[in-house]
Amino acid sequence: MKSLLKIGIRGVTVSDVRGFGAQGGSKERHGGSEFSEDKFVAKVKLEIVVSKDQVEAVIEKVKDEAWTGEIGDGKIFCKIPKLIFMIADSMIL
Amino acid sequence: MKSLLKIGIRGVTVSDVRGFGAQGGSKERHGGSEFSEDKFVAKVKLEIVVSKDQVEAVIEKVKDEAWTGEIGDGKIFCKIPKLIFMIADSMIL
Amino acid sequence: MKSLLKIGIRGVTVSDVRGFGAQGGSKERHGGSEFSEDKFVAKVKLEIVVSKDQVEAVIEKVKDEAWTGEIGDGKIFCKIPKLIFMIADSMIL
Repeated sequence: MKSLLKIGIRGVTVSDVRGFGAQGGSKERHGGSEFSEDKFVAKVKLEIVVSKDQVEAVIEKVKDEAWTGEIGDGKIFCKIPKLIFMIADSMIL
Repeated sequence: MKSLLKIGIRGVTVSDVRGFGAQGGSKERHGGSEFSEDKFVAKVKLEIVVSKDQVEAVIEKVKDEAWTGEIGDGKIFCKIPKLIFMIADSMIL
Repeated sequence: MKSLLKIGIRGVTVSDVRGFGAQGGSKERHGGSEFSEDKFVAKVKLEIVVSKDQVEAVIEKVKDEAWTGEIGDGKIFCKIPKLIFMIADSMIL
C-alpha cells in the first residue's frame, strides 16, 4: 500500500472476499472433483481509483506486491466508469 | 458452483453482502413503510470471469441454481472490463 | 435509504469495506508517513441499480445523506452494465 501512496494513489477500497480460481482453493488439483465450500480461499479485493496516466504504474506496483508466480495470484481488472462524483465537493471527474 | 466448473469456469469471487431489493427484505410488503436496517437480507455476491462465448451458458447455470421465482432472486450484471491482467504470468486478456 | 425508496429505487446492495482515501484514515495528515493497516476506515459500499432517468436524482439523494464536507465523504461511481438479467422472471433489462 505504501508503494501505491508513493506514486500518488489516494483512494483504495478494501474488501474481504473468498476466491475460487483455477486452483480450486487447494494446491492439489483433482480433475472433476467436487469443490466444497471450504475449498474457497480468503482473499482481499482492492478497488483503486486512478487517472489514465497512472494505470500502468499501478498495475506494475500491484503486481510487484502480489506476485508469487502461483496460479492463485489473482487478476487486475481495469474498468472505466461513466463518471465519478466526489461527494465532499460535488466535483465530477 | 459445481455446475459452473463443469462448463469450464475457473474464476469466481464470493462476497457477503446485504441486499435490499423490491421485496424490502421481508415477504410482506408495506407501501410507504419505513425500511429499517433489519429489513436487509443477507445475500451472496458472485463475481465470475467468463469469456464472451461462455456468457449465455453461465447465465443459464446461475439462473438454474438461484431461481425460486420470488422477487428476491437477484440480478445478473454483465460488465465488460477494459482489460484483465493476470498477476501470475503478466498475461493480458 | 428511505429517501431512495421515495424516488422509486428498488435495488440496493450493501457491503462492508475498508476505505483508504486521501485522508489516509485519520484526520491528521502526515506527508510521507507509513500508513499502517489500522489507518483504514470502516466504510459502507452501496450498489444501486437505477434507470437512466433516475441517475441525477439518486446522486442528489446520496449526496444529501452522505455529505459532511470532509475529504472522506467518498465517491459515487456511475457504471453502465452491458446487460442486466433478472433471475426471478428471466427478463433482460
